[in-house]
Amino acid sequence: MIALALIGIGTGSPGHLTREAIAAMADADLILIPAKGEDKADLAELRRALCRQVLASPPPLAVFEMPTRDVTDGYRQGVEAWHDAIAARWEQVIRAHGAIRPALLVWGDPSLYDSSLRIAERVARRLPLNLRVIPGITAIQALCAAHAMPLNAVAAPVLITTGRQIRGHGWPQGVDRLVVMLDGECSFQSLDAQEGTHIWWGAFLGMPQQILIAGPLPEVAGRILETRARARAEHGWIMDIYLLDRCRAR
Amino acid sequence: MIALALIGIGTGSPGHLTREAIAAMADADLILIPAKGEDKADLAELRRALCRQVLASPPPLAVFEMPTRDVTDGYRQGVEAWHDAIAARWEQVIRAHGAIRPALLVWGDPSLYDSSLRIAERVARRLPLNLRVIPGITAIQALCAAHAMPLNAVAAPVLITTGRQIRGHGWPQGVDRLVVMLDGECSFQSLDAQEGTHIWWGAFLGMPQQILIAGPLPEVAGRILETRARARAEHGWIMDIYLLDRCRAR
Ligand SMILES: C[S@@+](CC[C@H](N)C(=O)[O-])C[C@H]1O[C@@H](n2cnc3c(N)ncnc32)[C@H](O)[C@@H]1O
Ligand SMILES: C[S@@+](CC[C@H](N)C(=O)[O-])C[C@H]1O[C@@H](n2cnc3c(N)ncnc32)[C@H](O)[C@@H]1O
Repeated sequence: MIALALIGIGTGSPGHLTREAIAAMADADLILIPAKGEDKADLAELRRALCRQVLASPPPLAVFEMPTRDVTDGYRQGVEAWHDAIAARWEQVIRAHGAIRPALLVWGDPSLYDSSLRIAERVARRLPLNLRVIPGITAIQALCAAHAMPLNAVAAPVLITTGRQIRGHGWPQGVDRLVVMLDGECSFQSLDAQEGTHIWWGAFLGMPQQILIAGPLPEVAGRILETRARARAEHGWIMDIYLLDRCRAR
Repeated sequence: MIALALIGIGTGSPGHLTREAIAAMADADLILIPAKGEDKADLAELRRALCRQVLASPPPLAVFEMPTRDVTDGYRQGVEAWHDAIAARWEQVIRAHGAIRPALLVWGDPSLYDSSLRIAERVARRLPLNLRVIPGITAIQALCAAHAMPLNAVAAPVLITTGRQIRGHGWPQGVDRLVVMLDGECSFQSLDAQEGTHIWWGAFLGMPQQILIAGPLPEVAGRILETRARARAEHGWIMDIYLLDRCRAR
């Protein structure tokens, strides 16, 4: 039986690591580090640095190239085939090292807009696998903490969604507060009525280059667009997230 | 200036504590421990144990009685007055100890269905306050990790809501996946169409008495009701949360 750990590491700050995550990292006999992740950043280097920083004697790190994604057969199929290819790669690396307690360091929390759980499911079809998930601080928690802002209005619901969703469908029905992730296009611009809407925006949360902007959406939208474009040009990549509230009922 | 830290401590497991949370606890010159919180459990004792467990020399702990909640003037007003009373209590304890780096240990994450941020805002009107929030593992992350289950279907939204909301309004429009919190009444029972709906339920997540049940809602609903009632009777209190999916699209 192979005990695979998916370890949530938070969103870039070594301070986000939990005791449980550190213990699981120390307990692993191999840490798999994808050399090219879903995002442009050199997050492989960040993961390596985390290991050095918090572990007295880190287990061997297996850095491996990620398969490239082929979207010629359509988005959905492209993703399925890509996950299959990644699962095959994980299996290959685990077998090659004879690892029995391999681990992966997952950005934020493994449950939130991340494919590691789905990939691990595929690996489980090829290897006798015992899967363990260690929760991590998400970009949502990092955003709210940085703004000292509650996620939800008192006793009210909040929707976690993506840039694509709000571009396609506008402001979702029946909910006054949204968290928008995976948004490369500042999709808040596509929302019809911005009057009365507030935004709490954050980029590189938990990292030294963290940027925060908050205010009434019509007033700060332009500043977010500019700041985002400039920061992205400067660093070569960006990760950002925001909370929207359309009645400012806190 | 008084530097008040609201420290997310996760949902009961010492393993949920982040490095940042532990550093902030160690750095505090006073830790405020409410003796009766929002929940029935003796979570004061749990907080005390956490301090002893992770800190070599814990700062002084100020255990204080929480004001009682008066709901005779209606739910909303009762809550406002209650928060005012708690803020006054915090202020009093901070002043009495002459603390300049007081801290509070907040269950889960301070941004999620928690009143500490709103109380701190009130304290800031009475004391020169510098507020710092340290994110923590939420019950949502603990639930998903325990079930090794993604929070969202691929690229799809997820709604975080309360038992009261789904009892009042049924299944929310436009979203196939819900997390339900603050539900003392197993409100999933009130949902009309349960066919095709799956549930991932968890109680005492991260704690030694953790319980998990998952499956098609019509099949496992009864078992959850019984298990919950029995566990609640046995321990004298319970905290539970669940994820619902109405098309099982993972
Ligand atoms: C593929 S998802 C992974 C989310 C991650 N599993 C989590 O728990 O936060 C990536 C998205 O998360 C958000 N994100 C992750 N890290 C971030 C950070 N440090 N600052 C701002 N946004 C971040 C962005 O919206 C980004 O598009
Ligand atoms: C007042 S809210 C606080 C939430 C907390 N701030 C968090 O981040 O998880 C309390 C609700 O959180 C959920 N909860 C908190 N801790 C839990 C645990 N250990 N197991 C199951 N549910 C929990 C339950 O739904 C409970 O009704």
